[in-house]
Amino acid sequence: MFTNRMPRYEILSADAMSQLDAGWRRLVTEIGVEFMSERALELFRQAGQKVEENTVFLDPEFVLEQVAKAPREFDVQARNAERNIHIGGDSMAFGAVYGPPFVREGETRRDGTMEDYRNFARLSQSFSVLDSAGGVVCEPNDTPLDSRHLDMTYALMTLTDKVFMGNVVSGENARDVIAMSEILFGGREAIERTPTSISLVNCNSPLRWDDRMLDALFEYAAAGQPCVLTPFILMGAMSPVTIPAALVQQIAEALSGIALAQLIRPGCPVIFGSFLSNIDMQSGSPTFGTPESGIGLLCTGQIARHFGLPFRTGGGLTSSQVPDAQAGYEALMTLLPTFLAGTNWVMHSAGWLEGGLVAGFEKFVVDCQIVEMLQHEFTPLEIDEGSLGFDAHQEVGHGGHFLGSMHTMERFRTCFYRPFLNSSENYERWMRNGAQDTATRAAAIWRKRLEEYEQPALDEAVRAELEEYVVRRRRELGD
Amino acid sequence: MFTNRMPRYEILSADAMSQLDAGWRRLVTEIGVEFMSERALELFRQAGQKVEENTVFLDPEFVLEQVAKAPREFDVQARNAERNIHIGGDSMAFGAVYGPPFVREGETRRDGTMEDYRNFARLSQSFSVLDSAGGVVCEPNDTPLDSRHLDMTYALMTLTDKVFMGNVVSGENARDVIAMSEILFGGREAIERTPTSISLVNCNSPLRWDDRMLDALFEYAAAGQPCVLTPFILMGAMSPVTIPAALVQQIAEALSGIALAQLIRPGCPVIFGSFLSNIDMQSGSPTFGTPESGIGLLCTGQIARHFGLPFRTGGGLTSSQVPDAQAGYEALMTLLPTFLAGTNWVMHSAGWLEGGLVAGFEKFVVDCQIVEMLQHEFTPLEIDEGSLGFDAHQEVGHGGHFLGSMHTMERFRTCFYRPFLNSSENYERWMRNGAQDTATRAAAIWRKRLEEYEQPALDEAVRAELEEYVVRRRRELGD
Repeated sequence: MFTNRMPRYEILSADAMSQLDAGWRRLVTEIGVEFMSERALELFRQAGQKVEENTVFLDPEFVLEQVAKAPREFDVQARNAERNIHIGGDSMAFGAVYGPPFVREGETRRDGTMEDYRNFARLSQSFSVLDSAGGVVCEPNDTPLDSRHLDMTYALMTLTDKVFMGNVVSGENARDVIAMSEILFGGREAIERTPTSISLVNCNSPLRWDDRMLDALFEYAAAGQPCVLTPFILMGAMSPVTIPAALVQQIAEALSGIALAQLIRPGCPVIFGSFLSNIDMQSGSPTFGTPESGIGLLCTGQIARHFGLPFRTGGGLTSSQVPDAQAGYEALMTLLPTFLAGTNWVMHSAGWLEGGLVAGFEKFVVDCQIVEMLQHEFTPLEIDEGSLGFDAHQEVGHGGHFLGSMHTMERFRTCFYRPFLNSSENYERWMRNGAQDTATRAAAIWRKRLEEYEQPALDEAVRAELEEYVVRRRRELGD
Repeated sequence: MFTNRMPRYEILSADAMSQLDAGWRRLVTEIGVEFMSERALELFRQAGQKVEENTVFLDPEFVLEQVAKAPREFDVQARNAERNIHIGGDSMAFGAVYGPPFVREGETRRDGTMEDYRNFARLSQSFSVLDSAGGVVCEPNDTPLDSRHLDMTYALMTLTDKVFMGNVVSGENARDVIAMSEILFGGREAIERTPTSISLVNCNSPLRWDDRMLDALFEYAAAGQPCVLTPFILMGAMSPVTIPAALVQQIAEALSGIALAQLIRPGCPVIFGSFLSNIDMQSGSPTFGTPESGIGLLCTGQIARHFGLPFRTGGGLTSSQVPDAQAGYEALMTLLPTFLAGTNWVMHSAGWLEGGLVAGFEKFVVDCQIVEMLQHEFTPLEIDEGSLGFDAHQEVGHGGHFLGSMHTMERFRTCFYRPFLNSSENYERWMRNGAQDTATRAAAIWRKRLEEYEQPALDEAVRAELEEYVVRRRRELGD
């Protein structure tokens, strides 16, 4: 996996940080946070926090005590040990887009299907820059709602050997994912020793945690499985229109969710979540890759480090409907700050289109290309006698060229990163090759990747047991 | 103009910097730098430097003494004082693409014409993010070679009221630009008091300065007009394949050119230039927006500051043939590091396509959009009681929305940057509006901008004198 040993780009002064710090303290103390779960309220009550109806008025020092119980860094195991990941520190792990109901393939935009889901899982396995297919790469709309989490989890477990995300639609779904993880990894003890899934628990911002996702949090936290406690903030709608206010709210929400996770199981691994962008104040549409979201992302990294927590952001975000120029620069407008901030768990790294409504096959390839370029860019320079190249100058002299020099010959195969999608063909050759734009080339690449895809080996007894579980549970769920 | 008050992102350690420092010293001392100009060699000889044939072996301390004579920051005046720019410090000035022989307009790629040139000048005037149309926005191939610098300079002076770049094809051309500047600004004294042009003097890397551009340097420096001394390095061809070697060479070349400028006129304003990317080692094609060029750019900023010099980089660079996804992310792969590094004079900010062979009308709009987004992103947060938004939370409460809150009402018009090119329309509306991708929307924008373009007022006597000069000189040149 990728380790980002470049410096972090931090833009908040100590004074700014203390203003934000005062801000979240006031918010949790005076406005409080709603938890739509009797179990959650009871835990806070028992811990001595003031609870009125569904609102918990939190003592900031109590929150920080809970947060301090969370590990700063932790491992997540994949069924192929070579794909294990580390969350925290300089580590960055990348997962595919999460949640789109629709799929785009070339000119066609349609409802996502289970076969689309499987294809995105296969592509996530195929592209080495991705550490995970994520969870809901697209909604498999042609499968029954009640049991599709079983089909998705089975696909993630069998078509990839990478880390996967757990389903969070309900506590029952979470129990299914945990049970299947126990089958895959050899029992409860194995998955509690080192977690095997990461799950996304969103806040219903502002300042409200809903019951179904909290039910899932209860299950995952109890099993020692990390959740990403994520304020879901489109500034102007789910938070005030000012970035500092959104950051303060984000801290209050994330830390309150993390405190709950620690009450459920002290020491449980968690990730400080961030989904932070803004709406277009004229149309009300969500917008992505914006200047405001870039600033928010940089601040989020600094804030998470301030609290000693690993953190999550997205990804290749864009509002664009198609994988065009806007999609390219908006994706990078989020992905480059992601590297500058050193995000530990990067969701939506590949495939995001149209504000997250669409998982795009071509966009998936574009994003993998961008992430791979950035991984090379965020690798420290090695400066030594060889890389200073004085001997090359002695050989070449003034006004010459270095193409055939010994210094070049020794290094030309590996000296520069070679992209798989970008074209630098000269015009005549590019025309001869069909004048293909990026999206056209990307389409050829994902189709070829699917053709060449090989399913990673899995013990047949384990596979059969997983399948039996899915079949039995689907029957129980009446699908 | 834009002032970048965000922190600089610096990736070179003190140790790395001293290794690079030792590197350029060894290069200028032992390999030396070629100057294909007897006048230049004579100046170095008189200053006590060792000269053998065309090669000057420079004493690094002598070079640094000359460099120290250059101003750290300076102003450049435009004929409209509101468009004056400052070069150095936190200031960033943006100019359009420079040098392409071809033009792309939608699906058409063709030789650039004088009317294309004028249209790019008009667009540069129209887009407020640009401080300059640059110089050779495209080659006007339908005008005579010997006198086209007159037509270009006249177009820049009359169609824009912004800072412009001087022609560097020869010393004679430079004298024409200076003479026309004297007409426009009211005499030699006026342009020497505060310079009125910036000119691009490229090194014929590695380690050679050619005669024609040096002749231009002699003219501009003598008139106190700043030149950008620019090593032209595609790593693997014009420098060794390793980034540290390219950086060392870049320092040696830029400082040697700057030293010459200071010998010509001590205290003359100069800009540390950088044009640094790499070739594809399989095809030999130049590539842009690469990880290597991004790293080089960040280091270049740090190096220029180390020597107390304002510096130049590009821009919206890309190898892509069309304004597609690759063009979008490659442009940003250069432009975002440009802001992180705090580049003072940003060349190729708008319109660059196909490795610089093509000036693209749609790409021009794409780049202006990206630059404008980045200008908003690189603006420090204001954190105060109002922006912390506590009152908004009091008004909205848990799980509500902020669309109609007082806090939002007071700020909604200006709270977020509103892009002019990006689409965040929902799918149905986007389809109804013709399912236009970014390039299609960009085409509509530049056409509308040209329709709405208004030529900035210019004193008729001055305009007539400029025209007379052009007519007379064209006749003298035999065109």
